Amino acid sequence: MDAPHLAVVGGGQLARMMQQAAIGSGIRIRLLAEGPDVSAAQVVPDRLVGDHTVLADLERVCEGVAVVTFDHEHVPPEHLRALAAAGHAPRPGPHALLFAQDKAEMRARLAELGVPGPAHAVVADPQDLTDFAGRVGGFPVIVKTTRGGYDGKGVWKVDAADEAAEAFASGRTLIAEELVDFRRELSAQVARRPSGEVVAYPVVQSRQDDGICREVIAPAPDLDAGLAAQAEQIARTLAVELDVVGMLAVELFETSDGRVLVNELAMRPHNTGHWSIDGSATSQFENHLRAVLDLPLGPTAARAPWSVMVNVLGGSVTDLEAQLAEVLAQVPEARVHLYGKAVRSGRKVGHVTVVGDDLDQVRSRARLAADLLENG
Amino acid sequence: MDAPHLAVVGGGQLARMMQQAAIGSGIRIRLLAEGPDVSAAQVVPDRLVGDHTVLADLERVCEGVAVVTFDHEHVPPEHLRALAAAGHAPRPGPHALLFAQDKAEMRARLAELGVPGPAHAVVADPQDLTDFAGRVGGFPVIVKTTRGGYDGKGVWKVDAADEAAEAFASGRTLIAEELVDFRRELSAQVARRPSGEVVAYPVVQSRQDDGICREVIAPAPDLDAGLAAQAEQIARTLAVELDVVGMLAVELFETSDGRVLVNELAMRPHNTGHWSIDGSATSQFENHLRAVLDLPLGPTAARAPWSVMVNVLGGSVTDLEAQLAEVLAQVPEARVHLYGKAVRSGRKVGHVTVVGDDLDQVRSRARLAADLLENG
Repeated sequence: MDAPHLAVVGGGQLARMMQQAAIGSGIRIRLLAEGPDVSAAQVVPDRLVGDHTVLADLERVCEGVAVVTFDHEHVPPEHLRALAAAGHAPRPGPHALLFAQDKAEMRARLAELGVPGPAHAVVADPQDLTDFAGRVGGFPVIVKTTRGGYDGKGVWKVDAADEAAEAFASGRTLIAEELVDFRRELSAQVARRPSGEVVAYPVVQSRQDDGICREVIAPAPDLDAGLAAQAEQIARTLAVELDVVGMLAVELFETSDGRVLVNELAMRPHNTGHWSIDGSATSQFENHLRAVLDLPLGPTAARAPWSVMVNVLGGSVTDLEAQLAEVLAQVPEARVHLYGKAVRSGRKVGHVTVVGDDLDQVRSRARLAADLLENG
Repeated sequence: MDAPHLAVVGGGQLARMMQQAAIGSGIRIRLLAEGPDVSAAQVVPDRLVGDHTVLADLERVCEGVAVVTFDHEHVPPEHLRALAAAGHAPRPGPHALLFAQDKAEMRARLAELGVPGPAHAVVADPQDLTDFAGRVGGFPVIVKTTRGGYDGKGVWKVDAADEAAEAFASGRTLIAEELVDFRRELSAQVARRPSGEVVAYPVVQSRQDDGICREVIAPAPDLDAGLAAQAEQIARTLAVELDVVGMLAVELFETSDGRVLVNELAMRPHNTGHWSIDGSATSQFENHLRAVLDLPLGPTAARAPWSVMVNVLGGSVTDLEAQLAEVLAQVPEARVHLYGKAVRSGRKVGHVTVVGDDLDQVRSRARLAADLLENG
């Protein structure tokens, strides 16, 4: 088999969808997967099973491969530096990825850059937390682990300092953030390649339930043009200033008083960009591959006035593929994406996108299709 | 690994593009490939290397799998019948596939059905051929092997009976067809599932050079609405009457005097339908998978007024992936598809599709992108 063009660490659905894009472009991926039958391992023949926290496993997947990219942000920074020192190109690089791995580093850097975000402070104990709450108008406030959280894990809304006892007891570094009074959540995505080119996707609206992305509307309906431009500009600025290579997602709050504040960063294809597979001229997965391989980036314009993506979370339907017949019969226009994952309650196991001219209809059709895959 | 949903025989680019569609739908494919690194074997982990003319190899790939489909039409009918007798479902079935495998059978059946085609006759020797030519106004006429031809192989235009000496010497059954005075070639594609549903794609125009598909325009420009309806109806009729399951492509001549005549049949995704990956609401590969798995078929409407697909044939560029940067820089809107095949002169190694509103521009951009991949 010819040498791979790209190593990908992590075998989740993001790597699976990267492979779908890679097939079209003739790009050969070598995968480091958590197990032989995880989502992406089902569709990438050139795969090794290993642990992304073990340097030797990372070295194995990178052997003979120049560029390495990631399904997630959990590779230890020291391992990324070791790979770089050995002549590989982790993209994004460890100096950039740090700001997606560590929320305290991210908040500090964004403050330096003058990018708007919620008030925040690293808190070492309940007294720190109480002091912080006092400065932002009192409880409730948000407490997060600075590292390792995702999909709502490692995030708590606390009404009093003692509610954070468990978080403090974990021994992990915590950051407190003001509870933002927001109208909705937005996401601004850009792709950036090492040679500098940046392309931006339309700013989208996302709805999170219990910290898990549930529904994305592209573009964000009725978004003030000035705010949309500001959100895009924040994403462009961060991509350049943090030296991101690949996709960057900037999750934002649109506050009730009409500002945007940065909530989270992700340096990889992101759930808020899945709509782009069916709704954009170039999917986020293809542009991520192009960006990390330093190829010209593709156009990001929407193909239709509206795209709505609804996540499929594990529900009462256990055989998703068997349920396809029902979904496609009732919602023939649905673009159904299944990840090859075993169904567990609340787990992301797929998504559905519908595109069209009428937002209400597109949204109700996408919701119907997702509901049929969750609840039958 | 969970059991596959579908066995696919043959590891060419059609199987590769089926896998791309299968990934999205969570459909697990097991592949019988000609070698460990052929086009589709590069992207299907669950693959066996074997020979599609050896029943034992076919039985291996079908073990535990209900439905089997094909990258090509070269599996011997007796093997298909043996698989069916063993409880598998070859789709299309041997009784249907016969008409794509054997041009004499196809011509006879189409004549019974009253479907228009060129005058034709099976010819056993040069005298037969001379007699046939006499009946259709003289030489030149077309001579074809009834079985095994593709991409212009097994087809000759002969100006005299002695020019067919080599063909007769091969010992293969030959069919002669009148040389059709045609304005252009068209292709009508439909998908049909076992439960009876049929969907039709827009009728397209194709241009062949030396028997190899070079360029496809969807829909066929300036096609008379009556002829378009007739072409679609022929494809629908043949799908039903021949009991085709999966994609059916009917290649047609539009004659200079304004008729359509059937040229060839293919019962699988077809080169004239590659535009549908980027240009249609549902690609032919996805609808082929849905059809053979008896899932509801997807909408076939074009996403844009025009789609132009140009094949990339092996030329002076030897590292296609390395040439991607140049192509994407010059034609950012091009949808480039590379098949992972080694470049050999004239070999189909990829295709490019451009979609848009202005046919002349779409066509020239697609041609430019393909030319850059062929000739640098």
